[in-house]
Amino acid sequence: MLPQTQPPESPDLNRRLKKLTSILDVTKAMSAERDLDLLLPLILYEASKVVEADRCSLFVLDRERNQLWSKVAQGSKSEIRLPVGSGIAGQVAETGEVINLPDAYADERFNRSFDTLSGYRTQSVLCVPMRDANGEVTGVIQALNKLNGQPFDSEDEELLLALGAQAAGAIENALLHEDINRLFEGFVSASVVAIESRDPTTAGHSGRVANLTVTMARALEHVHTGPYAHTRFSLSELQELRYASLLHDFGKVGVREPVLVKAEKLYPSEMDALQARFQLARKDLQLQSYRRRLAAARSRGTHHLEEIDAEEDARLAQETKRLDEVLEFVLTCNRPTVLAQGNFERLHELKHLRFEDSFGQERPLLIEREITSLSIAKGTLSDEERREIESHVEHTYRFLSQIPWTRNLRRVPEIAYAHHEKLNGTGYPRAVPDVSIPVQSRMMSIADIYDALTASDRPYKKAVPHQLALDILQREVKSGQLDADLFRIFVEAEVPQRTQKESHE
Amino acid sequence: MLPQTQPPESPDLNRRLKKLTSILDVTKAMSAERDLDLLLPLILYEASKVVEADRCSLFVLDRERNQLWSKVAQGSKSEIRLPVGSGIAGQVAETGEVINLPDAYADERFNRSFDTLSGYRTQSVLCVPMRDANGEVTGVIQALNKLNGQPFDSEDEELLLALGAQAAGAIENALLHEDINRLFEGFVSASVVAIESRDPTTAGHSGRVANLTVTMARALEHVHTGPYAHTRFSLSELQELRYASLLHDFGKVGVREPVLVKAEKLYPSEMDALQARFQLARKDLQLQSYRRRLAAARSRGTHHLEEIDAEEDARLAQETKRLDEVLEFVLTCNRPTVLAQGNFERLHELKHLRFEDSFGQERPLLIEREITSLSIAKGTLSDEERREIESHVEHTYRFLSQIPWTRNLRRVPEIAYAHHEKLNGTGYPRAVPDVSIPVQSRMMSIADIYDALTASDRPYKKAVPHQLALDILQREVKSGQLDADLFRIFVEAEVPQRTQKESHE
Repeated sequence: MLPQTQPPESPDLNRRLKKLTSILDVTKAMSAERDLDLLLPLILYEASKVVEADRCSLFVLDRERNQLWSKVAQGSKSEIRLPVGSGIAGQVAETGEVINLPDAYADERFNRSFDTLSGYRTQSVLCVPMRDANGEVTGVIQALNKLNGQPFDSEDEELLLALGAQAAGAIENALLHEDINRLFEGFVSASVVAIESRDPTTAGHSGRVANLTVTMARALEHVHTGPYAHTRFSLSELQELRYASLLHDFGKVGVREPVLVKAEKLYPSEMDALQARFQLARKDLQLQSYRRRLAAARSRGTHHLEEIDAEEDARLAQETKRLDEVLEFVLTCNRPTVLAQGNFERLHELKHLRFEDSFGQERPLLIEREITSLSIAKGTLSDEERREIESHVEHTYRFLSQIPWTRNLRRVPEIAYAHHEKLNGTGYPRAVPDVSIPVQSRMMSIADIYDALTASDRPYKKAVPHQLALDILQREVKSGQLDADLFRIFVEAEVPQRTQKESHE
Repeated sequence: MLPQTQPPESPDLNRRLKKLTSILDVTKAMSAERDLDLLLPLILYEASKVVEADRCSLFVLDRERNQLWSKVAQGSKSEIRLPVGSGIAGQVAETGEVINLPDAYADERFNRSFDTLSGYRTQSVLCVPMRDANGEVTGVIQALNKLNGQPFDSEDEELLLALGAQAAGAIENALLHEDINRLFEGFVSASVVAIESRDPTTAGHSGRVANLTVTMARALEHVHTGPYAHTRFSLSELQELRYASLLHDFGKVGVREPVLVKAEKLYPSEMDALQARFQLARKDLQLQSYRRRLAAARSRGTHHLEEIDAEEDARLAQETKRLDEVLEFVLTCNRPTVLAQGNFERLHELKHLRFEDSFGQERPLLIEREITSLSIAKGTLSDEERREIESHVEHTYRFLSQIPWTRNLRRVPEIAYAHHEKLNGTGYPRAVPDVSIPVQSRMMSIADIYDALTASDRPYKKAVPHQLALDILQREVKSGQLDADLFRIFVEAEVPQRTQKESHE
C-alpha cells in the first residue's frame, strides 16, 4: 500500500520498498498462523516469491540433538534430519554466515544426494540463517535456482535475511504454542488416568469415550440428510468436545471409594458385621438350650437328663438349621442379581427375628439398614448411593466451571454437564428436556453407554459383545432416551470399529 | 541494514525504507515478547519513534463488552476502559477509519478530560486502527503531538498503520499465551483441590506449600552471604518451583483412602470385627458355664444346684471381668499415642487366648494382624501402611514424569521427587545424600513440614503453634535432616508471616 505515491525515478528503491512492504504483510500472516503445518509452507511460498527462486526449503535447529530438521521441503512430505555442520544448510547453521552459490555443483559442501533422489537439478543456492530476537541462530532458509537464471544477488540476501528473521519469530511462537498445548493435554490425560486408577474397572473409560465421541463428530461430515445434515465441527470444536469427553467423569473423585466400587448390596464390612451377629445368635441358641436343660433338670430331676438332652439336641439342631437358612437366604439376596419374586416380603418378615447379645440384651438379628440394602430390587446401590454416584456429574460440572477455559473451549463444562441427560427428560442431574441437551452431549451419551457396556467386566456386570450393546442402545433410542439420528450414524458409520482401528494406528 | 548501498538522490524513499526496516526490526522484537506488560510499552516506544510523536497510547478492543481497554498509557499505570464509539479512539475502533487531527481541541469528538486530569496539552492527534490477519479491528494506536509542531502527514498514517498491524499480531499472541497459561494453571490448581478433597484434613495444603516455597525462593534475593548468596531464581524457575510444590502430593491419589485417613491403629471395620469376636467370646464363657452347671448337676445331683450356681456365677463373673479388661486394654492400645512401657509384652501374651466359636471350633481371641497393628509403637501406621503412604512420592514422580513439560518446566518431576529426602540420607523414597537434593526440594521440605505442623487439626495430631513448629524444625536441622542455612532464611525472612500476608492481599 505504500509506494503508489512515489516518483518513478527510483525503480530500484521502489522495488525494494514494495518487497519490504510485502515482507511486512507476510509477517502479519505468519504471526497469526500458529499451526506449524500451515506456517512452514506459507513461509516457503513467500520466501520463493520475495527472492524469485524456483523453490525454498527451511530447517529448524534442534539444539539438544545438534541437528537441523525440516517438516516440509516444498514438494516433499517426510521429515528430514541433518547434522549441524554438514552440507550447505548445516554450515550456515553452524557459522551463522550466509552462503550464496552461483553453481551449487561447483562447491564441495553441496550434497547432491537430494537431487539424485528427487531428480531435481540445483543450480544457484542462497542459504541464510534465521535468528531469534537475541540474535541466536534458530534455523536456516535455503532458496534454490533464481528464476532468471542469474545468481542470487546481495539484495536477495538482505531480503531473505529479513524474511527469515520474521519467520524465526513466527516459528518460535508456533512451537511454543504447540508445546503448551501438548503440556495441557498431557496433564489432563495423566490426571484422568490417575483418577480412574481409584476404580480399576473403569480404567481407560474416559479416553475411549473421548475417542468414540470425536470419531462420531467427524463422521457427521459425511452426513448430508436428516437433522444433522448441516452439523459440522471445526478443529477447535472437536478439541472442545475431546476435553469435555475426557473429563466427563472427573467428578468421580468426589464420590467415596467404597460406593464407587461396590460389588454387592452390603459393603464387605457390613457383611462381616452381619455374619458376626449370626455367629452370636447361633451361640445364643446354644446358651438358651443349655439354660433350658438346666431348668428342666431342676424341675424334672437328673434321671431325665438323657431324655432332656435328646429333646434339646433335636430342638437346637432345628433352630440352628433355621438360623443357618436365614443366613443362606441373606447371602443370596446380597448378590447383585434381580431380587426374586417374594423375597422382598420374606426379607421384611425377618426384621422380627431377635436374639440375646452377650449382655443379655435382646437385639434384632437384622438391622433396618441391612434389610433396606438387601431389598434393592436391581443392582447393588441404594437410592442414596445411586444419588451419590450420580452426583459425580455435579462434581464434574463444578470442577470444570472453575477452570478459566479459553474462548475456544468455553463450552467444555456445559457439554460434560449434560452427558447423563435423556431426550425424554428422564436423565440426571437436571432432567432437562431434549432442546437443552447439546448435540455434543447426545453423542457423548451414546459413546459413554456403549463403552460402559462393552468394556471389560465390572464387578457388578459382565462385558457385553458389540451387537448386544447396539441392541441395548437401540432399546434406549426406542424409549426416547437417546437421539435416534445420532444412533443411526453411530451404527452406519461404524464408529466403534473405526475408533478402535484409529487408536491402534 | 538495507539502505547503505542506495544512491543519495532519493532522500524521501530512503527515509521510508529506513523506517520500514526499523518496523521490521521492531516486529521481530515484539513477536518474541509474550509478556503483555513488557510488550505494550515496547510498542508505544517504537510507535512514538516511527511517527516522531511526543507520546502514544494503545487500546485493545474487548468485543464481548464492546469496550476499549488500555493497560498502559505511556506515563500512566492504571487500566482505562472506554466505550466503543466515544472519543477519537472509540470512533476509530467503531469505523476502522484513520482520524488525523492537526488541532484536537477543534474537534468535538476529542475528549479533553484526560488532558484536564494529567495537565497534558494535546495538539495534533493521529489515531489508526490495528487489524488482525483477517482484517478485523482489534484495537487502536493513537499518537499525540508531532514533535516538529506540524500535523501528522500521510506517511505517518501509513507507517503507524503498518506498525499497528504488526503490533496487533504480537498482542494477540501475547493474550493467547496468557490465556493458555491461565488455563493450564487453573486446571492444575483445580485438580489439586479435587484430589485433596479425598482427605479433608489436608485440604489447601498443596497451595499453602506452593506459596511458602515460592515466597522463600524470592526471599533468597536478599541473601548476600553464606552458601546461597548467589542462588537466584528467574521468573520461569519460580513458576517451575510453584508447579512442583503444587503437585508434590498429587500421588496421594494412588494411596488407598482408608490408609490416607487412618485415625487409629485398627481400621473401624477391623475394630468392629474384633469387638464382635469379644462378644462371641463373652457368650462362649456363658455357654461353657452352663455346660459345666449341667455336668455338675449330673454328677452331684440337683440338690446341689444352688451351690453349683453360686460357684459358677462367681467364676463366670470373674472370667467375664477378665475378658472385659482385655478388651479395655485393647481399646487403649488402639489409640494413636505412644505405646506405654510393657504393653508390647502384654499384647503379645494375649495371642494365646482362645475361645470356642458357634461351630465349636477353637479360635484365637486376637488374630496375629491385630496384635501387630496394636503393637505400633507410635502413630497409627504399620510399616506396610507407612510404606504405602510414602509411596505417594513415587506416584507423584511417575505421574509428573509422563507429562510433556515445556523446557522451562522440565525439572518439575525431579524437584517434587526429592521433597521427602533428608540431607543426612535418611529420607525417602530413595534415601539419597544431600548433594542429590536440589535446593528447590530442600526449601519445599521445610515448607511442607511447617504447614503439616501448623495446619488445622489432623485426626492423628493437633495443630501446633508457629513458634513450636519452628522449634520442631530446628530439631530436624540439628539432627542433620533439613538445610540449616535455608531454615535460617525461612525464619529470618519471616517466610510464613510474609506468605500469609501476601495470600490475603
